[in-house]
Amino acid sequence: MNVRGRFVTLEGGEGAGKSTHLQYIAAWLEQRGRIVVQTREPGGSPLAEAVRGIVLGDWAEGVNAQTELLLMFAARAAHVAYRIEPALIRGEDVICDRFVDASWAYQGAGRGIEAEHLVALEKLALQGVRPDLTIVFDLSPEIGLARAKNRGDANRFEEESMAFMSRVRAAYLERAKADPGRYAVIDASRPLVDVQIELARLLELRLA
Amino acid sequence: MNVRGRFVTLEGGEGAGKSTHLQYIAAWLEQRGRIVVQTREPGGSPLAEAVRGIVLGDWAEGVNAQTELLLMFAARAAHVAYRIEPALIRGEDVICDRFVDASWAYQGAGRGIEAEHLVALEKLALQGVRPDLTIVFDLSPEIGLARAKNRGDANRFEEESMAFMSRVRAAYLERAKADPGRYAVIDASRPLVDVQIELARLLELRLA
Ligand SMILES: Nc1ncnc2c1ncn2[C@@H]1O[C@H](COP(=O)(O)OP(=O)(O)OP(=O)(O)O)[C@@H](O)[C@H]1O
Ligand SMILES: Nc1ncnc2c1ncn2[C@@H]1O[C@H](COP(=O)(O)OP(=O)(O)OP(=O)(O)O)[C@@H](O)[C@H]1O
Ligand SMILES: [Mg+2]
Ligand SMILES: [Mg+2]
Repeated sequence: MNVRGRFVTLEGGEGAGKSTHLQYIAAWLEQRGRIVVQTREPGGSPLAEAVRGIVLGDWAEGVNAQTELLLMFAARAAHVAYRIEPALIRGEDVICDRFVDASWAYQGAGRGIEAEHLVALEKLALQGVRPDLTIVFDLSPEIGLARAKNRGDANRFEEESMAFMSRVRAAYLERAKADPGRYAVIDASRPLVDVQIELARLLELRLA
Repeated sequence: MNVRGRFVTLEGGEGAGKSTHLQYIAAWLEQRGRIVVQTREPGGSPLAEAVRGIVLGDWAEGVNAQTELLLMFAARAAHVAYRIEPALIRGEDVICDRFVDASWAYQGAGRGIEAEHLVALEKLALQGVRPDLTIVFDLSPEIGLARAKNRGDANRFEEESMAFMSRVRAAYLERAKADPGRYAVIDASRPLVDVQIELARLLELRLA
């Protein structure tokens, strides 16, 4: 029997550094002999990537909050069942760029979907799978958006208002505060190398 | 102010005659001067039709019951908001080939999704929109599948077992029995013209 792998999720607003630091965390774990699965949401399985194309796409009809929420959880249900849970069972570590906290922050706090719906959808889609560690990269939306714009590849979410982005940020911080055993918040406003040093300290503490 | 239109949904197993009779009902209403929107699920808006392609598609990874359910309700939330509710508000009648009862029958009774999830998803996706009349075309799965196969264009659902199809049929009948004010059951085993005669009688009674 394998020892179950660790499930690490990376969260934060646009341009906070999730995708950048995913590489760093994967390298850190691999150096310690772990097999690492790198993945992202929405997406992570062929079906879920097809759903990603729909939910991040621009539709003349718009994408209402309910549809967006349901598509995110549909992709997540496929991703958990097809990719995440099988890897954890094999004893591999899984690092995921955004996961269920993103739905609480974006569809919940951002778009105003009520908590009861998020609770019900978590129960349905996750089948009991929960992250062991969720790292929140905290950054003001102004800086994050400027970084993301530099990079190119905008999507529907990057066009949201600053008020929306501030609700997203506050939701991440609130969730982290309520469950310090699962979450860690990293100040992502500092230079990349400083963030990585803090990250290394955190990984040493929580995943070594 | 327009008087709100009527929302009619057509349900039943594979090959029961939903698509065939939709034409008949639309013609019947149009002859009485109504403006009629004909639509279907999953689908009915550009986004929802894209979701249809995913949920009825063949995926090497499979489509688990939770993903299927969430995709059906994601498409439905877009369809209701973009197409059904606006038409009803304009005073038009909407006839829809499958709607939420199909999720109760296929994902609920067929795949074993629990009622609590269906209740929660209805609340989220329908925003209070309910059919005024749901016509269940009742037919044994054996005859229905034979008719559907004759016609071609099979999908994932037509490959399900007879036991699955029997659970679907029983669920439709049970739902109809529990709410005779909203449902009508039509015996679809008889020749087409006989079904149409009964249908005309029903429409006269419920929609004239
Ligand atoms: N601490 C930092 N200081 C300066 N630039 C940074 C820092 N962290 C990341 N960047 C740069 O900011 C940009 C956004 O980073 P990245 O793509 O990793 O963010 P993200 O959180 O994945 O964004 P998104 O939510 O849009 O996917 C990249 O060009 C990255 O190189
Ligand atoms: N009462 C009937 N007697 C004989 N054939 C019928 C009858 N009703 C429909 N059919 C034929 O059976 C086939 C299936 O009908 P139809 O496509 O309308 O069913 P459906 O309920 O829409 O099926 P599906 O669930 O696969 O979409 C068609 O070829 C149609 O012409
Ligand atoms: Mg990224
Ligand atoms: Mg049909």
